[in-house]
Amino acid sequence: MPDSRRVTVRDIAAETGVSIATVSRVLNDHANVAPRTRDLVLRAVERSRLRATGTRTVYVRCPYVLTDYFGLIVSSIAEALKVHGLRLLLDAGESAQHTDALATLPDEPGVSAAILILPPEDGDRLVALSRTDLPFVVVDPRTPPPPHIAAVSAAHFAGALALTRHLVELGHRAIGVVAGPEEWLAGDARLAGHRAALSQAGVLPMPHHLRHIEPTAAAGHRAAAELLDHPQRPTALVCFNDKLAVGALRAARERGLRVPEDLSVAGFDDIDLSRATTPTLTTVRQPLEEMGRIAVTQLMRVLDGHRPEALHIELATTLVVRESTGPVP
Amino acid sequence: MPDSRRVTVRDIAAETGVSIATVSRVLNDHANVAPRTRDLVLRAVERSRLRATGTRTVYVRCPYVLTDYFGLIVSSIAEALKVHGLRLLLDAGESAQHTDALATLPDEPGVSAAILILPPEDGDRLVALSRTDLPFVVVDPRTPPPPHIAAVSAAHFAGALALTRHLVELGHRAIGVVAGPEEWLAGDARLAGHRAALSQAGVLPMPHHLRHIEPTAAAGHRAAAELLDHPQRPTALVCFNDKLAVGALRAARERGLRVPEDLSVAGFDDIDLSRATTPTLTTVRQPLEEMGRIAVTQLMRVLDGHRPEALHIELATTLVVRESTGPVP
Repeated sequence: MPDSRRVTVRDIAAETGVSIATVSRVLNDHANVAPRTRDLVLRAVERSRLRATGTRTVYVRCPYVLTDYFGLIVSSIAEALKVHGLRLLLDAGESAQHTDALATLPDEPGVSAAILILPPEDGDRLVALSRTDLPFVVVDPRTPPPPHIAAVSAAHFAGALALTRHLVELGHRAIGVVAGPEEWLAGDARLAGHRAALSQAGVLPMPHHLRHIEPTAAAGHRAAAELLDHPQRPTALVCFNDKLAVGALRAARERGLRVPEDLSVAGFDDIDLSRATTPTLTTVRQPLEEMGRIAVTQLMRVLDGHRPEALHIELATTLVVRESTGPVP
Repeated sequence: MPDSRRVTVRDIAAETGVSIATVSRVLNDHANVAPRTRDLVLRAVERSRLRATGTRTVYVRCPYVLTDYFGLIVSSIAEALKVHGLRLLLDAGESAQHTDALATLPDEPGVSAAILILPPEDGDRLVALSRTDLPFVVVDPRTPPPPHIAAVSAAHFAGALALTRHLVELGHRAIGVVAGPEEWLAGDARLAGHRAALSQAGVLPMPHHLRHIEPTAAAGHRAAAELLDHPQRPTALVCFNDKLAVGALRAARERGLRVPEDLSVAGFDDIDLSRATTPTLTTVRQPLEEMGRIAVTQLMRVLDGHRPEALHIELATTLVVRESTGPVP
């Protein structure tokens, strides 16, 4: 398609709103062009060229360390973008939370679209971004996404509901919750699901049974220790990821509590680890890789000028019952 | 610096070796320009623009899933590149092993440099890449890197030597090894370090005490089970990552073997998990984040036109002794 590879002065003028004469002056380096106009024109030339050669770049932001959780999402996005011939510009690591990436994103040279994983910004900021002409998809939104913004998430509420219902059916009523940090991940949705299941069983949650902490095994160990040393000790612990649950198993063992005979422990995520602990972990499987793949599918539809078939996609989570949960003692 | 932002037809002609008249023809979309020439010119325009605005892009390839191991390396590279104002073009996931990225890399539009994490290609391919004008640094090379190629690795040999020496000092002689896949990671170096420590103690390794498997907890569980069911059961297991060791702990417990009283178990990496198992894991800490940061420091020197102070940097590993290793029964 040699025709589609041509970038004309006329095209650049049309795209930028700058006159043909000025575009020519920029390309021939005449002095009397304002730096901002020059920049605008050169950027449009670059965009045209990338469009013409079919090289499109997607900016992917994951402002967290790429652990077994976020790393799996980013890996699947990387693989899916490659299948579609798109390049991936990565912004990752916790320091990415401290830069105002959304404001500068529409001007990022050569970027055709964006995927934002668990953006820390609130919905208003996403709405503002949607008013620019940059297509984007949100993965694992922290707050309910605005109606017209494409988003892919896991059914956190339903997953936590299923898990606590499983414990309630086993007779548990005093259930401790080792949650991630407040405002973290889908923690709020999981807590809501947990409380909905308790409520259906006619049980009120006990405030002293909840701990918000960093989502690490060491923190899970400390938080579980506190819950287990409380005079009104819970008979089950729900942990909002598998690493927290590993810490909880350790706290139980240090106190001579057998799992699941004396205490039930459950995790969230179903990472590799959950099949290798003793006892193996009951957990809620997160569709991490599917989330990445579906986000790219959504984005491709938008890039190809279509509207996604569904703007908000919630992928099913699955309760995986293993050895660490059993009947209330 | 308005001057440095100018991209002139003269510059593009000089850079591409195409005549000024032809460059003008391309930019004004005259028909009689060969597509290849057109492409060459437009690419040079893009490069100039990126140089002028100071936006440089580093291609980072990690042809593996971004788990707690590789994800930490990529996260620290992402953070360090951002500090230097560089953009990160990511190629990740296992499918990246099946594309010939090194061959097309020098032509990748807008890429100023590259970081290759554990490249599956052999040294000859890296030498070929070094003959192009694209600066690059290798992180965690699989084979000894060619002398003139910048590389950052962990002291795998020394780490494994220290670990097996620790076990030998505890009286262990029959030491099983749960290694990753053959040709995997720094597995060969670790195996060599292990054997060197045995050899110093006058012990020959037993071939039936070695298993090469996928580096997951489930595979570690299976491999450890085989080693522990062998008539000549080892008294200690060295696992080449912490997830494998978690699987080994489980295999021990299923057989009623107490760790460390009846069996010592050790891991490698010192990921979060190793502090949360019961017992906590003796392991060898990998400087994953430091490796990423040092790789970027190396690359910055090359990009700034300097020679790195040392071409091959090996970062220290540290033996971390916890509860899972003890005197031979």
